[in-house]
Amino acid sequence: MAGNSFGKILVLTTFGESHGALTGGVLDGFPSNFQVDLHFIQSELNRRVPGTGDFSSPRKEEDRIEILSGIFEGKTTGAPIAFIIPNKDYRTEDYSALKEVYRPSHADYTWEKKYGHRDYRGGGRISARETAARVAGGAFAKLFLISKGISVHAEVCEIGGFMLPGEETRVHEYLQALKEAGDTTGGIISCTINGLPAGLGEPVFDKFQANLAKAMLSINAVKGFEYGSGFAGSRMKGSEHNDAFVAGPGGKGVQTSTNFSGGIQGGISNGMPVSFRVAFKPVSSIIMPQETINKQGQSVQFTGTGRHDVCVVPRAVPIVEAMAALVIADYMLAPAGSDSATTPVPR
Amino acid sequence: MAGNSFGKILVLTTFGESHGALTGGVLDGFPSNFQVDLHFIQSELNRRVPGTGDFSSPRKEEDRIEILSGIFEGKTTGAPIAFIIPNKDYRTEDYSALKEVYRPSHADYTWEKKYGHRDYRGGGRISARETAARVAGGAFAKLFLISKGISVHAEVCEIGGFMLPGEETRVHEYLQALKEAGDTTGGIISCTINGLPAGLGEPVFDKFQANLAKAMLSINAVKGFEYGSGFAGSRMKGSEHNDAFVAGPGGKGVQTSTNFSGGIQGGISNGMPVSFRVAFKPVSSIIMPQETINKQGQSVQFTGTGRHDVCVVPRAVPIVEAMAALVIADYMLAPAGSDSATTPVPR
Amino acid sequence: MAGNSFGKILVLTTFGESHGALTGGVLDGFPSNFQVDLHFIQSELNRRVPGTGDFSSPRKEEDRIEILSGIFEGKTTGAPIAFIIPNKDYRTEDYSALKEVYRPSHADYTWEKKYGHRDYRGGGRISARETAARVAGGAFAKLFLISKGISVHAEVCEIGGFMLPGEETRVHEYLQALKEAGDTTGGIISCTINGLPAGLGEPVFDKFQANLAKAMLSINAVKGFEYGSGFAGSRMKGSEHNDAFVAGPGGKGVQTSTNFSGGIQGGISNGMPVSFRVAFKPVSSIIMPQETINKQGQSVQFTGTGRHDVCVVPRAVPIVEAMAALVIADYMLAPAGSDSATTPVPR
Amino acid sequence: MAGNSFGKILVLTTFGESHGALTGGVLDGFPSNFQVDLHFIQSELNRRVPGTGDFSSPRKEEDRIEILSGIFEGKTTGAPIAFIIPNKDYRTEDYSALKEVYRPSHADYTWEKKYGHRDYRGGGRISARETAARVAGGAFAKLFLISKGISVHAEVCEIGGFMLPGEETRVHEYLQALKEAGDTTGGIISCTINGLPAGLGEPVFDKFQANLAKAMLSINAVKGFEYGSGFAGSRMKGSEHNDAFVAGPGGKGVQTSTNFSGGIQGGISNGMPVSFRVAFKPVSSIIMPQETINKQGQSVQFTGTGRHDVCVVPRAVPIVEAMAALVIADYMLAPAGSDSATTPVPR
Repeated sequence: MAGNSFGKILVLTTFGESHGALTGGVLDGFPSNFQVDLHFIQSELNRRVPGTGDFSSPRKEEDRIEILSGIFEGKTTGAPIAFIIPNKDYRTEDYSALKEVYRPSHADYTWEKKYGHRDYRGGGRISARETAARVAGGAFAKLFLISKGISVHAEVCEIGGFMLPGEETRVHEYLQALKEAGDTTGGIISCTINGLPAGLGEPVFDKFQANLAKAMLSINAVKGFEYGSGFAGSRMKGSEHNDAFVAGPGGKGVQTSTNFSGGIQGGISNGMPVSFRVAFKPVSSIIMPQETINKQGQSVQFTGTGRHDVCVVPRAVPIVEAMAALVIADYMLAPAGSDSATTPVPR
Repeated sequence: MAGNSFGKILVLTTFGESHGALTGGVLDGFPSNFQVDLHFIQSELNRRVPGTGDFSSPRKEEDRIEILSGIFEGKTTGAPIAFIIPNKDYRTEDYSALKEVYRPSHADYTWEKKYGHRDYRGGGRISARETAARVAGGAFAKLFLISKGISVHAEVCEIGGFMLPGEETRVHEYLQALKEAGDTTGGIISCTINGLPAGLGEPVFDKFQANLAKAMLSINAVKGFEYGSGFAGSRMKGSEHNDAFVAGPGGKGVQTSTNFSGGIQGGISNGMPVSFRVAFKPVSSIIMPQETINKQGQSVQFTGTGRHDVCVVPRAVPIVEAMAALVIADYMLAPAGSDSATTPVPR
Repeated sequence: MAGNSFGKILVLTTFGESHGALTGGVLDGFPSNFQVDLHFIQSELNRRVPGTGDFSSPRKEEDRIEILSGIFEGKTTGAPIAFIIPNKDYRTEDYSALKEVYRPSHADYTWEKKYGHRDYRGGGRISARETAARVAGGAFAKLFLISKGISVHAEVCEIGGFMLPGEETRVHEYLQALKEAGDTTGGIISCTINGLPAGLGEPVFDKFQANLAKAMLSINAVKGFEYGSGFAGSRMKGSEHNDAFVAGPGGKGVQTSTNFSGGIQGGISNGMPVSFRVAFKPVSSIIMPQETINKQGQSVQFTGTGRHDVCVVPRAVPIVEAMAALVIADYMLAPAGSDSATTPVPR
Repeated sequence: MAGNSFGKILVLTTFGESHGALTGGVLDGFPSNFQVDLHFIQSELNRRVPGTGDFSSPRKEEDRIEILSGIFEGKTTGAPIAFIIPNKDYRTEDYSALKEVYRPSHADYTWEKKYGHRDYRGGGRISARETAARVAGGAFAKLFLISKGISVHAEVCEIGGFMLPGEETRVHEYLQALKEAGDTTGGIISCTINGLPAGLGEPVFDKFQANLAKAMLSINAVKGFEYGSGFAGSRMKGSEHNDAFVAGPGGKGVQTSTNFSGGIQGGISNGMPVSFRVAFKPVSSIIMPQETINKQGQSVQFTGTGRHDVCVVPRAVPIVEAMAALVIADYMLAPAGSDSATTPVPR
């Protein structure tokens, strides 16, 4: 109910605050007897860590995962997989000024309004730090999907309104200017899932796209989601938008000649690639003076300091993939639905 | 698991197929001792029924709700509220030709792939018919929200790429042309929620926007969702996008001077209006010959006949409102979170 | 949350009140493409209806099930199976005297305390009437189990303290005396599940016996549950109680030489028969004057009238079976757990 | 689904194996802004640890809880409370002989059958070790209940068939004899909940007693549950068993003159004490040679060694209390149900 768990069959529960000792998670429902490549798990976490580039936070996070349970002799046992990722570089002294003030577009105010008590040292649960546990949990899901021939690939397709690939130089110039100004910008990530079997998803409330949308909008800073033809599809004609069914290669199986459906029809995958796009707002932490109020309701000026990401969108790529992988694995592990092994559908 | 239920505290389960005898639902978790205005419930259903306009299906659906349980002497008892909406005008003879063919961009193929057995007479569960039960369930949620001073208002803001209000004449001309051609188009609905208290929503996976997104993407034909600044927000600077906190009217309470956050920060409502937009693709049922394949995997031509909506977006307005109302009521009924009645947050 | 649904994969939601027009249910998650024998469903309902015997209520309930959705051409489609069972013989005039009084050991007081508003005409949801929907839903589960070679068989093993079989004559005499006195008694039902595969159940909170216990204690009038050696097992020595593993017939598979474990070890079925016992209290509706209080808190005398079951335990046999079948089918439909099709366990 | 979580509003997820480095848990949904007495949490854990008595295992478990998240400046923040309890004294060398053999009445066989891969060093998840996390989670629930005036008290009422209190001397002699023989025995724990408000519980599937029964049967070695009059109640007459309602002290409120109902009517608490009993089988680990089979299905003799509890029932007392407290707190935190603050029920 409190919403720190995600999934129905494969359930990831996360815990830990941005300025506590660690972030962690419990992954329940992962198949047993599965050989786990822990190097892959770690490599996924490494993708989320800020690099040495110019535009990401200098916060040095060595996201080293420690497995607490659920794996024995290299294989899953069916017991819940618990893990922690210690927070190596949190400094509480940075945050003492934040106790009384509500930072603009942060969750300081809403958290306090809801819970009446807040870890004022940072974002607490509403922090990019929490997503480390998602990436770790999603990496397990990815391993499972890989074993089934399913791939999940995301990439940045727009930063600050500039298209990628294609406008790399302008993006770098723009981000450099923002960095100097202490400002930030957002962007868009696109993601494609290949190798999905037809028949995943549920036709009514738990449509494939509905759970994907929830997964994406649960990521910090996400403002929008579209799949297949998306918003642009709303301006098309039905005669343009309909995807004609055709026989697959060599006359076997079924595919569509276009894919405005984005691989999903009636909430259920049709075997074509699933594609979607996710919009991220600019990060709220800027190094500029801003008007706001304090706990007493008085107007105050607040100026951010310390580490600062000009654009977090590149770091969000593995998070998008992780959340998508959790959604897909959950569907893959769900009961098959049909009592009959043989279906009259062409393959 | 099978996904015919929505919500955690206030749970709507729907049943019935488009070409069966009825559509229905069970609403569990609605507060007891609540006086129910059944005229309001019926009036919400009437909003979804096609009117006498030129561009909606001539299918005559008198969506008369019948309450089966849960209400006694005009008030809810705490028992589940079950209801049915008989399907008055289904004609099975229309659909015999559909048994062997997969209509383009319909769910015929995916349903059969998943379930191995299909009611070929129409869309079954994956049909606009199912949404009648959502509107009925959502109308109960709306009554509850109204009693708490919360309103949910949606409207069509774009059809076929034309903005509304403003381009009504061009929209009518466009729809007339599509009707003559047997074609269809999509559109966009915007929705605003007013009167929300601050503090609704959960900070991690069950963010307010995440559950809204899932609710919207669970509606047939929806391709995208954005809230607050949405996709456009991804192109803004942080210094533009951040919403400054200011004291409310008369120095009481807290509000923001802009609302790019769309009324939600960190997944939790901040008391400002929540606004979002939902994109609908063109309906797949067109009265034109299309290429597709049949169950045997052979290429065939399929031409739709019978009733036909040029644009369903106007009919989807009450569905968007209903799903939003279910999400909000679910949050309103959730445990308060804080053990303390008094919070240090300015009101 | 409101607790009118049971199960995780196979979910039965029930609705309807004892003195409303009908009782009904929605069964979601049942496998598609399954041929349904509706005569069997009806025959299970018939088992719950009071017979012409001397000791059951003369209330004439023709429990005729009507399927509303989810079945097409005799087979399940994967859509939720909704059904209703009209209440044929409810007479509201019987119940007007109940509006102000709290009947002893009925739920009048607790319902009103919880919900503030009550259908005073009878037990509402807390009535044996509700169990008709359980029997119908459970009958679907039974059909599924039968197709997998699993049987669920319950029988009365004790009435009023007399053992059955063996003391039939004394039971009849005792019930006759109670009937004349307007009194009631309880009893015990035993149930055995045969044909279960090993490996069903979950090792921690969702142990097989835990879900069985919940299912049984959710039945009206049930006061206790025990499985395998039960309460008596608490008085045994470990050396007596331990079940030795031995090779199965012909040296194939694994079984145990005794079955004090009741077919379950560590919450997971071991392939031996699962046996359990359920205790029912005497029905609260007696035709004798009783002291109680009314809504104003004043002492009043209440004397029950009308129809009256001396002992409902025989009628509860199909309910016990239905709830057990729902539990087992839910486990049968759950994900297999292991990623490997081959296990090193002897078969 | 995999069943390592318990509760709906207040959700405890446990992890860790008996022979891993630790046991732990995540408690989600606990109210924020609640001052936590960590000494109390630790003192509850100490109750579960084997003492210096003669009849409990010499395994030295210093169950020191470490809080990982969710508490800031001594108060809960609304974030999930994660904790670990390191396993101080596990010795893997003890368990190498267990790799190939299925110990009688242990879960070795069923785990391997279900999951295909097993931590053969001990019971893994199906071990008393797991219950440490339950006691810790339950201690938080208890703190919450204490703040609401609700107490949960369990005690051993029977060991090896001898009643307690009353037969202490005979119990000690019996346990001494069992210890010398390397044998074990079971017992019964009774539990009473005082201070409960009326109105807790749900009337149909989630009856108060149903969730209590599930909670108790989810504890290792539990074979039976009864509440109120229990199994003995099945032998009573309705006229004896019905609890007359009477006005409370000073004519205020409502109570019953007897309490065969065990404080629950129609699945909902009536404000009287809730009492129940739980039966435990003898522990399976005995220091005697036993017949069993190995993974190859061959007959082998197995003799337990090492630490060994003659009777775990005394150590289970805090576990029974913890699980009961989790059930009650979950109900206490659930939505109130009624929309009206004022009910017509006498108080």
